[in-house]
Amino acid sequence: MARFHCLTFLTDYGLGDAFVGVCHGVASQIAPDLRIVDITHLIPRGDIHRGAMVLAQATPYFPPAVHVAVVDPGVGTARRGVAVQAGGALFIGPDNGLLSVAIAQAGGAARAVSLTNAALWLESSAATFHGRDIFMPVAARLADGMPLAEAGEPIAVATLVTLPRPEYRIADGAVHAEVVTVDGFGNVQLSLPGPNAPGAGLVPGTRVAVAWDGREAVMPFVTTFGEVAPGEPLCYRDGGDWVAVAVAGGDAAGLLGLRTGTPVTLTPQ
Amino acid sequence: MARFHCLTFLTDYGLGDAFVGVCHGVASQIAPDLRIVDITHLIPRGDIHRGAMVLAQATPYFPPAVHVAVVDPGVGTARRGVAVQAGGALFIGPDNGLLSVAIAQAGGAARAVSLTNAALWLESSAATFHGRDIFMPVAARLADGMPLAEAGEPIAVATLVTLPRPEYRIADGAVHAEVVTVDGFGNVQLSLPGPNAPGAGLVPGTRVAVAWDGREAVMPFVTTFGEVAPGEPLCYRDGGDWVAVAVAGGDAAGLLGLRTGTPVTLTPQ
Amino acid sequence: MARFHCLTFLTDYGLGDAFVGVCHGVASQIAPDLRIVDITHLIPRGDIHRGAMVLAQATPYFPPAVHVAVVDPGVGTARRGVAVQAGGALFIGPDNGLLSVAIAQAGGAARAVSLTNAALWLESSAATFHGRDIFMPVAARLADGMPLAEAGEPIAVATLVTLPRPEYRIADGAVHAEVVTVDGFGNVQLSLPGPNAPGAGLVPGTRVAVAWDGREAVMPFVTTFGEVAPGEPLCYRDGGDWVAVAVAGGDAAGLLGLRTGTPVTLTPQ
Repeated sequence: MARFHCLTFLTDYGLGDAFVGVCHGVASQIAPDLRIVDITHLIPRGDIHRGAMVLAQATPYFPPAVHVAVVDPGVGTARRGVAVQAGGALFIGPDNGLLSVAIAQAGGAARAVSLTNAALWLESSAATFHGRDIFMPVAARLADGMPLAEAGEPIAVATLVTLPRPEYRIADGAVHAEVVTVDGFGNVQLSLPGPNAPGAGLVPGTRVAVAWDGREAVMPFVTTFGEVAPGEPLCYRDGGDWVAVAVAGGDAAGLLGLRTGTPVTLTPQ
Repeated sequence: MARFHCLTFLTDYGLGDAFVGVCHGVASQIAPDLRIVDITHLIPRGDIHRGAMVLAQATPYFPPAVHVAVVDPGVGTARRGVAVQAGGALFIGPDNGLLSVAIAQAGGAARAVSLTNAALWLESSAATFHGRDIFMPVAARLADGMPLAEAGEPIAVATLVTLPRPEYRIADGAVHAEVVTVDGFGNVQLSLPGPNAPGAGLVPGTRVAVAWDGREAVMPFVTTFGEVAPGEPLCYRDGGDWVAVAVAGGDAAGLLGLRTGTPVTLTPQ
Repeated sequence: MARFHCLTFLTDYGLGDAFVGVCHGVASQIAPDLRIVDITHLIPRGDIHRGAMVLAQATPYFPPAVHVAVVDPGVGTARRGVAVQAGGALFIGPDNGLLSVAIAQAGGAARAVSLTNAALWLESSAATFHGRDIFMPVAARLADGMPLAEAGEPIAVATLVTLPRPEYRIADGAVHAEVVTVDGFGNVQLSLPGPNAPGAGLVPGTRVAVAWDGREAVMPFVTTFGEVAPGEPLCYRDGGDWVAVAVAGGDAAGLLGLRTGTPVTLTPQ
């Protein structure tokens, strides 16, 4: 397998400890010239769902890379560590669904192995820091050109744990979706893919009634924030090309009381 | 135009989403060997003034670089995206004043273009993530040696938006200044340049009466924090060579109630 | 002295200002191809003890490197700046104990200099930003191959400031230790090295009574978190191979009221 251009790294380790730096150090020892790009290390602790969404938002924008992600509340249990080939990339982390959205987006898993080749791991008496001891040393070797098969035993891709994909349905002229994630600006991403919006009657220049939790707001469906006045709500296709709700210059999630999982109905006016 | 050594990156994107990593990925695809240095991504959301000050504090310490900065509450409005040559560096971002303090410090804008060459942009149906779709792909190409003229139409440098430069005046034997910015330690930077301090009677070894909001404190004007006892206030020339007020081992802004924009009068004793 | 593979950087500068980026810029000017790895910049302001522990957790995982650390409440006082050779690495920062735990772990100081060669420093009228003006320019030159002796006057390694090493004692069949540090997950590291645990009767598969502040909890001594139910406390050898107390899926420090310095007694059951 050819060498990869870079390794990306996403975790819930936080930035106040040595965890992230230690993993960079381990990779540097194995592949001294490898570029390591941090996606984020501020995934809320143990929030596999949020980690999966953020990873999937990032990975399409990278050249062929090894993507290491660790949000792993089950570290030290029987859950597998895996390396999965999808598109031109490799995804490495716990087999708990964290990788699944990004893998689906890259075209689906082509091959996978369980990380059982302990000869590649860092020697350690500890059993709770798999990012440092297993995922990063294996990933650095794969980035450096080691064949996938050397990382461990092949497994059927159908056995990989997947998160339920965000769903929506159209009924009675309305889109029934839910909040998938909220970004740091408070913008609220819904489970309706942008390319499916026109078929549901959601196109720039129209208005849409957004209903949730017994509340409703009618807002324009726009192309850019600049089309509405500051403080006004809007509906649009966001940077990841999902339909989203925002407030111009404001925190939509906070102002409107929308949270991950909130059911939302969109009715074109 | 020769290739640049590195690209710096400053935003208000925060560190909890994929935004910053995505922009690194986009640049990596265009210029695989380019070094990217993050200055900060924790500028308060939409705070152009603070972004401009932090950018100007950082850029003088880099080798010839492409500096990308995005604090852009007007994304999607008519505001231009620009690339500006100043000194040996290029500055890229929204034309909203964010770049202006750093550009002035680098000797003033020599040439500028409006980023109108859409052939360089990332294809996207979204219109709200110019950092990823416009600024970063254009900047990476410029860092890689693309001539500035290819980025878009030339514009007169006099039309670039500039922030009012921090001002001060001397009257009745006192300096009338204001708080320009507060750093993470709580140190309070005033609008009096360090090199102008001696002319105003502010030199190490003297004392100065600092007055604000109807309050006053007399403190030593020192060279280093070590000259006062912990907990004591002091006046000094800070790391960016502006006159500043601090509390040794403490948070001056919080303890003294000083905020950005607070008028401050300094009277040498 | 040969060139080093990389330079690591740990401070209490925070991530909201330009401080960290500026230091990267300074190093880039001197050693354009040097890899710089940030360990963390979120050490609590001025907390030398916490900085020393985090630095010591990270440095063993790097290839031969120059380690720059700055937690420096005494900047501008008479405290020395030092460069210390230990193992295959160099440690650079204030001589206030910050470097001492990592140096001891690397095998102890072999040689040291006081950073008195002002010709290497950045010219600056400020005296409060030694990371930028002294430590980073000197470190970048050392990473680039400059002999240690050129950085300043040799000093006796016995004169270097050291922090008291965490201690424990065994008496009456119990281990008397203390809390050394708490990580971002709330896991509580004690002052008992993992390799010394078996000798004190602490081995996987046994139970241990943990007593502190007049409270006591009996918990299993395990190898991995997966051996206990979520919410249950456990005792284990952590990623740095110290004996530690955690709560599976929870914040042990918060839940149990354990803080740095709390005396803890471990009695095997």
